[in-house]
Amino acid sequence: MGLQLYDLAGAERERRFSPYCWRTKLALMHKGLSFDTIPWRFTDNDAIAFSGQGRVPVLLDGDRVVFDSWTIATYLEDAYADRPSLFRGDGGRATTRFINAWADSVLVGGILRLVVTDIFAHLHEKDRAYFRETREKRLGATLEAISANRETDVLTFRKTLEPVRAVLAAQPYFGGEAPAYADYAVFGCFQWARCISPFPLLLKDDPVWVWRDRLLSACDGFARNALGYPV
Amino acid sequence: MGLQLYDLAGAERERRFSPYCWRTKLALMHKGLSFDTIPWRFTDNDAIAFSGQGRVPVLLDGDRVVFDSWTIATYLEDAYADRPSLFRGDGGRATTRFINAWADSVLVGGILRLVVTDIFAHLHEKDRAYFRETREKRLGATLEAISANRETDVLTFRKTLEPVRAVLAAQPYFGGEAPAYADYAVFGCFQWARCISPFPLLLKDDPVWVWRDRLLSACDGFARNALGYPV
Repeated sequence: MGLQLYDLAGAERERRFSPYCWRTKLALMHKGLSFDTIPWRFTDNDAIAFSGQGRVPVLLDGDRVVFDSWTIATYLEDAYADRPSLFRGDGGRATTRFINAWADSVLVGGILRLVVTDIFAHLHEKDRAYFRETREKRLGATLEAISANRETDVLTFRKTLEPVRAVLAAQPYFGGEAPAYADYAVFGCFQWARCISPFPLLLKDDPVWVWRDRLLSACDGFARNALGYPV
Repeated sequence: MGLQLYDLAGAERERRFSPYCWRTKLALMHKGLSFDTIPWRFTDNDAIAFSGQGRVPVLLDGDRVVFDSWTIATYLEDAYADRPSLFRGDGGRATTRFINAWADSVLVGGILRLVVTDIFAHLHEKDRAYFRETREKRLGATLEAISANRETDVLTFRKTLEPVRAVLAAQPYFGGEAPAYADYAVFGCFQWARCISPFPLLLKDDPVWVWRDRLLSACDGFARNALGYPV
């Protein structure tokens, strides 16, 4: 039996929108590993109780259970060391952690406020009360209030991408000449938005758009072909 | 003749405060290379005209002239490949570029607004008109207005360090178990402030303070012993 990944889904089972699961799926593709995904919803606690925690991604590799996208990335790098590297060395592994943390903080935090009502609209009915309650508590406002000013908030969000543009002016990928896990850590956040929201985060003349477009095309368009919006 | 570095100085020739020069000095120490510094002021254009541009750091290594802190770092890594690595591999080199760019944007940009009047106060008299004119034009306000609300602005600045704290919760340095150029890229920004301003950027219970303190002590206290403020 090949690898299996519990993957966050919306009302439609093919709407897969977790930024963290996208990181893992791109890492698996990078390693050339075939895998199946198992759709999972926020309230399916019982389905992944075997992992001892309640969030996805959860990866099954034979008897091994691995969760947390960063832990999964380092697991794949070590367990499949003979396949294309996600970090290209220990220095890359250490410094990619900052890029991952920056994406968690600035991108996940920034994008959530812009697309939160779109996420809600695409959730399975059984997840809606859970999502509204936990996110409104975390963010201190109703979902509708959080994203009410997104047309102007997105301008602020785009400014936070300045260091990304500086990197892309010098090299085609975070990983250098080819994509690496650092790219997937960031790309996963944009793919999350693309799969759940018609709201345009990026402008077409932004170098970040161009970089994202190359990653959408990678692996025979694996990410581009996912159910989502052409934004 | 050993390596020579043109290093930004204030009115006192031992007040060395450029974040970019600090990156280079720490990189030279990391490589175990001895070097002399040549104090340089913003308006000493003639002194570095031989480099074909007007900013420091400028490094002389025999006949070689190298400028721009990132270019110097990659030059040192390649020219002194047998000495301790600044990046630990090509993956580290590629991903460190993002950390460098993030520090340029978020830290240099954020810290400048908090300490700009302190910089002005420490400049050599001949540099003051140049500095006021260029910075006020760039930032769109008088130096005094820019830093007028720094007691509250610093609270916002500290929030931008969240991804740094996430990394330091998992590993002691950006570079992993030991400092690497990624650490110096970030540390240089804090050292810039420490050398020029009594304004406390960090609180002592912040993991970023603890990390910075370890780097202040590195290389027999090279950075701690620099002329500056104990903040």
